[in-house]
Amino acid sequence: MNGAEGLLAAAGRAGVEVCFANPGTTELPLVAAFDSVGGIRTALCLAEGVVTGAADGYARMSGRPAMTLLHLGPGLANGIANLHNARRARTPVVNVVGEHATWHQAADAPLASDIESLARPVSGWVGRTTSAATTGADFLVAHQAALRERMPATLVVAADHQWERAAGAPGPLPDPRPAGVDDERIEGTARLLSGAARPALLLGGDALGAAGLRDAARVAAAVGGEVFAEGSPARIERGPDVPVARSLPYFPEDVSAVLAEFTHLVLVGTGVPVSFFGYPGGSSVPVPGHVQVHPLATAEEDALGALAALAEAVGAAAGPPARERPEPVRPEGALTAESLAAAVALAQPEGAIVVNEGITSSAAYPELAAAAPAHTELGLTGGAIGMGIPVATGAALACPDRPVIGLQADGSAAYSPQGLWTQAREGLNVTTVLCANSRYRILEAELHRAGVREPGRSATGMTDLGAPGVDWVALATGFGVPATRASTAGELVAALHRARTTPGPHLVEATLT
Amino acid sequence: MNGAEGLLAAAGRAGVEVCFANPGTTELPLVAAFDSVGGIRTALCLAEGVVTGAADGYARMSGRPAMTLLHLGPGLANGIANLHNARRARTPVVNVVGEHATWHQAADAPLASDIESLARPVSGWVGRTTSAATTGADFLVAHQAALRERMPATLVVAADHQWERAAGAPGPLPDPRPAGVDDERIEGTARLLSGAARPALLLGGDALGAAGLRDAARVAAAVGGEVFAEGSPARIERGPDVPVARSLPYFPEDVSAVLAEFTHLVLVGTGVPVSFFGYPGGSSVPVPGHVQVHPLATAEEDALGALAALAEAVGAAAGPPARERPEPVRPEGALTAESLAAAVALAQPEGAIVVNEGITSSAAYPELAAAAPAHTELGLTGGAIGMGIPVATGAALACPDRPVIGLQADGSAAYSPQGLWTQAREGLNVTTVLCANSRYRILEAELHRAGVREPGRSATGMTDLGAPGVDWVALATGFGVPATRASTAGELVAALHRARTTPGPHLVEATLT
Repeated sequence: MNGAEGLLAAAGRAGVEVCFANPGTTELPLVAAFDSVGGIRTALCLAEGVVTGAADGYARMSGRPAMTLLHLGPGLANGIANLHNARRARTPVVNVVGEHATWHQAADAPLASDIESLARPVSGWVGRTTSAATTGADFLVAHQAALRERMPATLVVAADHQWERAAGAPGPLPDPRPAGVDDERIEGTARLLSGAARPALLLGGDALGAAGLRDAARVAAAVGGEVFAEGSPARIERGPDVPVARSLPYFPEDVSAVLAEFTHLVLVGTGVPVSFFGYPGGSSVPVPGHVQVHPLATAEEDALGALAALAEAVGAAAGPPARERPEPVRPEGALTAESLAAAVALAQPEGAIVVNEGITSSAAYPELAAAAPAHTELGLTGGAIGMGIPVATGAALACPDRPVIGLQADGSAAYSPQGLWTQAREGLNVTTVLCANSRYRILEAELHRAGVREPGRSATGMTDLGAPGVDWVALATGFGVPATRASTAGELVAALHRARTTPGPHLVEATLT
Repeated sequence: MNGAEGLLAAAGRAGVEVCFANPGTTELPLVAAFDSVGGIRTALCLAEGVVTGAADGYARMSGRPAMTLLHLGPGLANGIANLHNARRARTPVVNVVGEHATWHQAADAPLASDIESLARPVSGWVGRTTSAATTGADFLVAHQAALRERMPATLVVAADHQWERAAGAPGPLPDPRPAGVDDERIEGTARLLSGAARPALLLGGDALGAAGLRDAARVAAAVGGEVFAEGSPARIERGPDVPVARSLPYFPEDVSAVLAEFTHLVLVGTGVPVSFFGYPGGSSVPVPGHVQVHPLATAEEDALGALAALAEAVGAAAGPPARERPEPVRPEGALTAESLAAAVALAQPEGAIVVNEGITSSAAYPELAAAAPAHTELGLTGGAIGMGIPVATGAALACPDRPVIGLQADGSAAYSPQGLWTQAREGLNVTTVLCANSRYRILEAELHRAGVREPGRSATGMTDLGAPGVDWVALATGFGVPATRASTAGELVAALHRARTTPGPHLVEATLT
């Protein structure tokens, strides 16, 4: 057994089932070891942004970290943006980054660079193997750190530590558990809520699962409050049996307006809402001054346990209040952002995973989705565009029995179209609804907000994607994914129904007017 | 005038003519300022790897830095791999990275991250603006640092420093000049060469221009030596009037074999050759022990001046020895790596810029190119694949009157196919010869070298790109670039001739057998 085999044997024992990979020469002993050790499925991706985004999507759905295999500093660098999203999603990922043999590092060979400096901004833990004998133990420390910090952990593995002889693989370390919330904080929150004129709960992280949403709805019903979901959540459950949480809007003035009617804001598994960007004359925290903010559980703590205990403490009813399921909107005519979102909510099958990187084109979706059958939505957490196709790829690999729908902006899709190839290669049931408005619409809106009412030639050239227009049907076909086009809501609904009945990936270019 | 306008006015005065960009909300004042200030052409790229690779290609051809405009840490991150190549190419690039408003940075908004930690591994200089009043001066310091360090420089510009009022723009700083090599070193080298039994010169950087190659050939003729070019040079000139420099091979044992016949190795504008990777039982420096290594000029010094002085000191003839121009090879039949390279060398027009990221498919090209008309070759300097299409894009923008040919491996092209869109948008005369062998051939070779003679299912799955095969004609068409397919040398030559006569970009998928 060499160090590479020791590492993979330890990974397998720790429960790692999938490795998303784009390896090179410094990772070759690991490449060979997947066959000799067995037990870990490998999925090749054509670019590292797909590798890391897929690992994020996989772990959001499975709750367990995937491994990534990346080629030195530049390979890691290509995956950083989606690791940034994973960090903001609080997703555990274990990055294994190959490095030159220890004795070759001083030579400053062409591919050498400061891997740790690149890794640190997106990793809760960064380390290096120290010998071939301990690669397995080193991996387990990284794996445990990813689960503990709920963030990517990055282990740099020198080539000689892979190819040299190792003794064997150690057994797994215990899974870390989030810190519990003490009774005092539960009771304090219960007292606060009971005396509050108009309280709201803001949920994030695990609290946006079905159990959390039910307990939050029980609490809200008992104290006369409302339940909100943080913006662009990593994962949120929806369906007829799941209470609805209102989404916090994107722009800070809209957040302020929504929160103005409340007296208290209790945070559950998330922090104080902050403005996505700072604007001239604005502030970082769009919570009106009269709203008293109170943390029940941070993102690091056991938010689910705290919510359940809070429901008892406020004397909530056993179940959430019955909710009326809205009638699905039946859109007609040309595709707009609204009719597109309505068509998806109408056509999505039971149990779908909806990966939402539609940006402006899917802004209407979360509200319309209250009428849809049970589903899970995964959002763009860190604002680094290009996550949608990769995250959908990983989610589909984690949940082969659930259909995945990608609500995908075109500008963002152009960052990582290579992910379509892995969907084709692995035969994944992903249908990408490519929202083609041929512009960075969000930037146009921001320019308008900034007072630029008639953008000049340069500014227009930096928001317009229509010259030439990207032919998404051709691109998808080029990567091996069957594709079609829809320009009306009816065509989109029909295309989604067709995609459902044919296994494997599909892409529908939805041309927005 | 606001800070954004002050920055761009200073950039214009410093000679910046082009900005490759993929901006977001934190860069909006700069987006608007390109129109109000004028004078700098903007080129939108669909992903930041294209932005930074294009800036590298532009500066390699123009000798002047391009500006890049990138969106916070994640935007910079996507561009790091090609900045790594630029750093290894010793290319000046000035990255302008937008950042949250200073008062918003503490809020740790979703897109916030440690930009400096990401920038440092690929930048010779990293800094931040300190106020709107000094953005122009800050840019000039970054610009001068990029020229001085011959490396990317990264300036982080907070959004409020862009939108707040500035006084005006300062004038440019003087261009730094490389340190000269003193007479003592010149004369010492001349003495060494005159007494050497069998000396060789190894050239890198500027020494691989026409003047450097001529002076090196003069020296070699006078002392009975040979001239080598470093592996994968950033830029090398070739043509009937330019002496040929032998390429150093890729694998270290081949380098050792080639250098074994020499007694001395004089380094001119480059360092001691190092192995690209370390292999078991190998060493970092493949120079045989009996070869005496002697630096004439480092990559930081004035290698051209040193070579000219050395030619005088050794009493070289006024011109290089006449060289016999080899007959071009006329390849026939199915496309192999050899016939493909020969077809390109045969068909390339006078004055072409050949961007070589063909990896194994173009290994034969540098030698065959001795028969080609005058041209410039740009290589993959840092080993971070995905540079070819972006560098070709930037080179074409720098030299609109010269045809650009991309010798492009398919695995590498899959990292940054988005660059084709910018070629279409800007109407650039780039013809990409897409070498489609449907595999990471170099990895297969490395696996074989490592003793893995029959790769298993996982290992094969990480080197094979054929299931599904990427349809490059469809991909190019999707990005707006007309494309065709060639599977024989004759078809490739014909396709290259056709591409020459039609303006704008083209792609030829060359199917290798």
